Amino acid sequence: MKPAAESSAAPTEETDRRPLPPGWSSYITPEGLRYYVNSSSKETTWRRPSSSAEAPQRPLARQNSSPYANGCHSGTKKGQPAEVANVSLRKPAMHKQPPGSVSPAKRQIKEVKETKITINCVTFPLPGEGPEQQLLKPDEWSYCDYFWADRKDPQGTTSVTGFEVLLQKQLKGKQLQKEMAEFIHERIKIEEEYAKNLSKLSLSPLAAQEEGTLGEAWTQLKKSLHDEAEVHLKFSNKLHTEVEKPLLTFRGDNFKKDLKKYDHHIADLRKQLASRYASVEKARKALADRQKDLEVKTQQLEIKLSNKTEEDIKKARRKSTQAGDDLMRCVDLYNQTQSKWFEEMVTTSMELEKLEVERIEWIQQHLRQYTTLRHETDMFNQSMVEPVDQLLQNVDPAKDRELWVKENKTGDVRPVDMDI
Amino acid sequence: MKPAAESSAAPTEETDRRPLPPGWSSYITPEGLRYYVNSSSKETTWRRPSSSAEAPQRPLARQNSSPYANGCHSGTKKGQPAEVANVSLRKPAMHKQPPGSVSPAKRQIKEVKETKITINCVTFPLPGEGPEQQLLKPDEWSYCDYFWADRKDPQGTTSVTGFEVLLQKQLKGKQLQKEMAEFIHERIKIEEEYAKNLSKLSLSPLAAQEEGTLGEAWTQLKKSLHDEAEVHLKFSNKLHTEVEKPLLTFRGDNFKKDLKKYDHHIADLRKQLASRYASVEKARKALADRQKDLEVKTQQLEIKLSNKTEEDIKKARRKSTQAGDDLMRCVDLYNQTQSKWFEEMVTTSMELEKLEVERIEWIQQHLRQYTTLRHETDMFNQSMVEPVDQLLQNVDPAKDRELWVKENKTGDVRPVDMDI
Repeated sequence: MKPAAESSAAPTEETDRRPLPPGWSSYITPEGLRYYVNSSSKETTWRRPSSSAEAPQRPLARQNSSPYANGCHSGTKKGQPAEVANVSLRKPAMHKQPPGSVSPAKRQIKEVKETKITINCVTFPLPGEGPEQQLLKPDEWSYCDYFWADRKDPQGTTSVTGFEVLLQKQLKGKQLQKEMAEFIHERIKIEEEYAKNLSKLSLSPLAAQEEGTLGEAWTQLKKSLHDEAEVHLKFSNKLHTEVEKPLLTFRGDNFKKDLKKYDHHIADLRKQLASRYASVEKARKALADRQKDLEVKTQQLEIKLSNKTEEDIKKARRKSTQAGDDLMRCVDLYNQTQSKWFEEMVTTSMELEKLEVERIEWIQQHLRQYTTLRHETDMFNQSMVEPVDQLLQNVDPAKDRELWVKENKTGDVRPVDMDI
Repeated sequence: MKPAAESSAAPTEETDRRPLPPGWSSYITPEGLRYYVNSSSKETTWRRPSSSAEAPQRPLARQNSSPYANGCHSGTKKGQPAEVANVSLRKPAMHKQPPGSVSPAKRQIKEVKETKITINCVTFPLPGEGPEQQLLKPDEWSYCDYFWADRKDPQGTTSVTGFEVLLQKQLKGKQLQKEMAEFIHERIKIEEEYAKNLSKLSLSPLAAQEEGTLGEAWTQLKKSLHDEAEVHLKFSNKLHTEVEKPLLTFRGDNFKKDLKKYDHHIADLRKQLASRYASVEKARKALADRQKDLEVKTQQLEIKLSNKTEEDIKKARRKSTQAGDDLMRCVDLYNQTQSKWFEEMVTTSMELEKLEVERIEWIQQHLRQYTTLRHETDMFNQSMVEPVDQLLQNVDPAKDRELWVKENKTGDVRPVDMDI
């Protein structure tokens, strides 16, 4: 789409004879309008650049290569991991066409059909068209590269944004973490019950009257149950403090609130994008109307069909120029919001990625603690049996008989024959 | 006590001029009665031993050194342990006094007061008197040496025989063995309950949706609970077949019946002893009466106080001799029963001792099986945790992210700026 011609300059004539500032060249559109391009800064403008002493010209559109997101993202937290900082948030440079190289209507149709597509008020390049986009983190399956589009649910009735998919992953992760804690809690209850039963049995008076070395071994066997119970109780206590609790409290209630904040922030930007897109559409339509009006008036003057004065045409041309400026401003605002959204998307998805890595590592660490405790329990249990084994080895029927006989003997004098 | 003089021989005269068989000597009691002693066989008799061609004389009393119990005991079972067979059931030789060396009444009083005591119709040497009795098994605290006397209960109202003490030990052992089986049964129930709970928890759907390497580790962790449950179930099954059942069925119902048989057998012998003791007492009294009658008649003849004929005195002497024979027969019967009782006491107490050793060894063996199974359980349990550990080590957040992104990505084409 071509901007309205600058009112102060004739459409095709170079009125200002002064030389252009260094780097600037002057060109004419197929429609015959003159524009200026800075080959080094890639700036393009309808206004004739003045010498460097003047105030810098407002660029036709914010440069794609401008460092629009150099780290001042509001969501950025202290201690953000290096990998987030390492990703350049600059968008890769795109080919730049001079403004108004085709008629606005044609250009828009061409864009839609050939190189760009607008989804939910965000403009994307068409897949397979235009220059290939480079991944922000080509060596990783990073969230920041793969969640730009929206996804329709299987019924095709509602669609969720890529960002929502990321958020749901987080919420699900939190839920699974909670379920693991619940699982561990069940295990704790089983261990407690087991320990209680073993301990109770260890106090049973069954066969308490067994004596001697066998009695000692038996007493130790019963005692070992108490020790086993202690081992399992210790296991369940440690499971509670070292596994269940960390799993349960890691990312408490604040976590969901934080996720909601992210959600609202991104949603606000999407809303803003929609409103700015609407403004662009409105400005585009106003410009078209103004250009049509100017064309009609110019034709009428040329073929003397009306008594329109030059003054009228000048007025129409001025309005058309204003509408062009308006459109440029709306596009500019849209692009600003889009860039902010892009930046937010990248930063937040990387933050979510970091959270997910932390979650996995946290769970891994505490499940390893679980296996360590299990291992410990088996080791302790084994050592509980050893003294029983020892005493069982020492069981000596002859010794037991001796002890019992000493305590229970009635007399060692044997009967003799009766004499007459 | 002196026997009545043999009717065929004058009280103090050696009527038979033939020489005595080798080894025999003739003596006269302080009362002037002749008796015969064989110095090699220690046989003592009132009758003059005839030459070796004649039938052997009935001994005065069964010889203490006779092998009266050389293995034909009715309770002896096939496969009786060597230690029982090794014990000689001969009673150690005792000093033998010639019969009738003191008057019957004096002799009996002397026995009771000085060297022998009769407890529950069994004659024992008095402690500290007479020759020391050697232990049957001097190197062991064997039952056969220490349960000859009876024991009064603490209240002193009833007394139990040594044999009953031994029997009660057996019954108590059987009871303790049953209680141990019961204890093991309780343990089995605890293990079953524990296994059931673990198995149930292993099937819980908690956190089943965890994906990727963490999901694999988590699934294995849950599966390991099932394996643990299996280990504990196997433990409880083996406890049942390899510990509880052997402890429960070792010496079943027949055992108590066998003990009762022993009990009855010994009790019968005791009863027989009592009845034979009574016979001895009666015969002793009859002899005393007859001797008194003979003495009175002899005195009357000497001082011519009566017109009693020699015929009357001969009759009284014959009756006295018969009463003496009767007493000898009764003492002999008593001694036979006492010997049988002695033999039965020794054999049975050694059998009970063998049973007790077997019981202790049986219990020892099966409790060792318990500790082996416990050990095995801990070993298996440890190996159940290993695959979980392995998978937890393999947890890789980057890989999990890749898997998840591949499955859930919505699009990698980023938004671009809108052109005018």
